[in-house]
Amino acid sequence: RRLHYIREPSRIYEESFRLVREATDLSRFPEEAHDLVIRMVHACGMPEIAESLVVSEGAIAAGRAALEAGAPIITDAEMVSHGIIVSGLKQQNKIVCRLNDPRTRRIAEREATTRSAAQVDLWTDVMEGAIVAIGNAPTALFRLIERIEEGAPRPALILALPVGFVGAAESKAELLRDDRGVPFVTLPGRLGGSALAAAAVNALASGLGE
Amino acid sequence: RRLHYIREPSRIYEESFRLVREATDLSRFPEEAHDLVIRMVHACGMPEIAESLVVSEGAIAAGRAALEAGAPIITDAEMVSHGIIVSGLKQQNKIVCRLNDPRTRRIAEREATTRSAAQVDLWTDVMEGAIVAIGNAPTALFRLIERIEEGAPRPALILALPVGFVGAAESKAELLRDDRGVPFVTLPGRLGGSALAAAAVNALASGLGE
Repeated sequence: RRLHYIREPSRIYEESFRLVREATDLSRFPEEAHDLVIRMVHACGMPEIAESLVVSEGAIAAGRAALEAGAPIITDAEMVSHGIIVSGLKQQNKIVCRLNDPRTRRIAEREATTRSAAQVDLWTDVMEGAIVAIGNAPTALFRLIERIEEGAPRPALILALPVGFVGAAESKAELLRDDRGVPFVTLPGRLGGSALAAAAVNALASGLGE
Repeated sequence: RRLHYIREPSRIYEESFRLVREATDLSRFPEEAHDLVIRMVHACGMPEIAESLVVSEGAIAAGRAALEAGAPIITDAEMVSHGIIVSGLKQQNKIVCRLNDPRTRRIAEREATTRSAAQVDLWTDVMEGAIVAIGNAPTALFRLIERIEEGAPRPALILALPVGFVGAAESKAELLRDDRGVPFVTLPGRLGGSALAAAAVNALASGLGE
């Protein structure tokens, strides 16, 4: 017995994005941000994130230009890296995650901090003009803001989407209070996650296509 | 300048789980399911999932026993695989994802279905007694149910957490309507995701520890 459900990938995508559009209020966003909002809502199943999502002025253009220029994509977690659709990266942009770099553990121990934050100190050589996608750890976002204040190379765009009960709301509030001149996308409060961060990258890379 | 935030990993975990407990109504669940619910709420930042999460009778014991017996963990997406804390797997349980297996694409093309569903036909040799963690694709859950009906080897536990607008609610409803005798954990409706699926595995493997 075969169950009744839509099997064809193209029909699933089409129908999904149609339902997301129907359920989501896009009116707060400029046209250029619509694909990003749609892909993020699609990734989490929650149209209501569009009510609080913040896309800073110029963030979409900055992200697209960085990808087209071949900039690397830096992530705070392997889950984010593995959510990025590689075939959508026209410039074969490098995806960098240094959470499991052996140096990261040493820095974390020395600084009594998380590995998520410690890895940020190893981003310096790839951070200039990069897209930073944070989908897990508030401490990574806090540390990134500190590094930018310290004069580290500036990313082109921060996708600031850490999740959880300790530090997620606070780290995103700190970015909203003062973005230090770096364009960003963020979702205030506890919600976030690697699926949202990867969806944002995928939208910048290939809109609603693959 | 250093920003003010909690840096120590153990304090972050402790404080997170404390806040989750405070915000989450666990009274619907048996004691043995609490760690799983707490880890899942922690992963998504939403205490309200505890209102609709379904843990079938015996699901926790079945999942723990399977892991202790060294059963493999089968996932529908690389994001799920990469969210599993490997150090928590005391029996070095194998993590299997066949989404990117070259055979999967061929099956998908032949059957006019998604790669997510097609890979399920390649699970047969590892499915007996396994933990299946579906955190992305509704079509994978639908196909799994079909395969169990066709007499394929039975998993010990299904973590049924596909997400989205097309098929997610429907596939989980089909499992809830008739579980075909396999224990399960599911979240009815559109919500789900790889972080939730991985968190469920992590809770079964190591409770609230690492």
